[in-house]
Amino acid sequence: MSPSTDLRPNEETVALAAPNDASLRFIGHIETPWNNRADCPRQGHRDGPECRLVLHPVWAAALNGLADYPVIEVLYWLDRSRRDLLTQSPKHNGETVGTFALRSPVRPNPIGTSLVRLIGINGHIVRVRSLDCLNGTPLLDIKPNRCDFTPQALPK
Amino acid sequence: MSPSTDLRPNEETVALAAPNDASLRFIGHIETPWNNRADCPRQGHRDGPECRLVLHPVWAAALNGLADYPVIEVLYWLDRSRRDLLTQSPKHNGETVGTFALRSPVRPNPIGTSLVRLIGINGHIVRVRSLDCLNGTPLLDIKPNRCDFTPQALPK
Repeated sequence: MSPSTDLRPNEETVALAAPNDASLRFIGHIETPWNNRADCPRQGHRDGPECRLVLHPVWAAALNGLADYPVIEVLYWLDRSRRDLLTQSPKHNGETVGTFALRSPVRPNPIGTSLVRLIGINGHIVRVRSLDCLNGTPLLDIKPNRCDFTPQALPK
Repeated sequence: MSPSTDLRPNEETVALAAPNDASLRFIGHIETPWNNRADCPRQGHRDGPECRLVLHPVWAAALNGLADYPVIEVLYWLDRSRRDLLTQSPKHNGETVGTFALRSPVRPNPIGTSLVRLIGINGHIVRVRSLDCLNGTPLLDIKPNRCDFTPQALPK
């Protein structure tokens, strides 16, 4: 699927050179029940269906200790999004606002961030709840939730 | 400054090909009071010093509407971090854990995420509080905080 080139009323684009300031390395992919954009929830729900973060097996050891955190932050690459919109007119209300005032997948660097509930870890596979992205979305990073992250050796 | 190649006890690396799965486009840079890693706070403080997100002027219109949000999420590129550590032994306690169980800047895709307090916006410059990154850090994205983001047209 290639990025959409349709524009809604009042949306503005910017002419940009190809992005090449830094490069990403996908660490795996995400399995969700949603295979089309129309099926994805607008935001993840606390009690949403189980999804799987499937890491390349080489990264399995990097998950050591993650099971201690009930909530984790997941970063992923919204690979089907156009990247040149300055302003957007979301379908649900037609108002036009700047790209950085929206959590839309359409942005200059289409990185999604979600806080999800950790269910369990089996080898290089992490089971979670409350994602909202498409099945097959490339995975970029996993971190403990910043609120829960108070290393034991530091005063709370 | 080039990425450090030092390893602490028990840290493991992984042999990786060059990253080239997707490319980032820096949208500006961040100005903070901290010019050395040793000076950076370990995490941002609610009442920390004022910092500035300086966007390339071409993105100014993409900030329209952002001023409505008291807390915003900022994504940035930790350009001085090595990317091949599977496990890490943080200095403060010497225990060894997986990279994905830490919020360390050292990770396969060194993207930092912070929730910061918005002070004000002047043209293409966004003034914020509670960042913890180095002066000059490349800026990737700005989004409204997910908790505050309930579009007016949707039921709360």
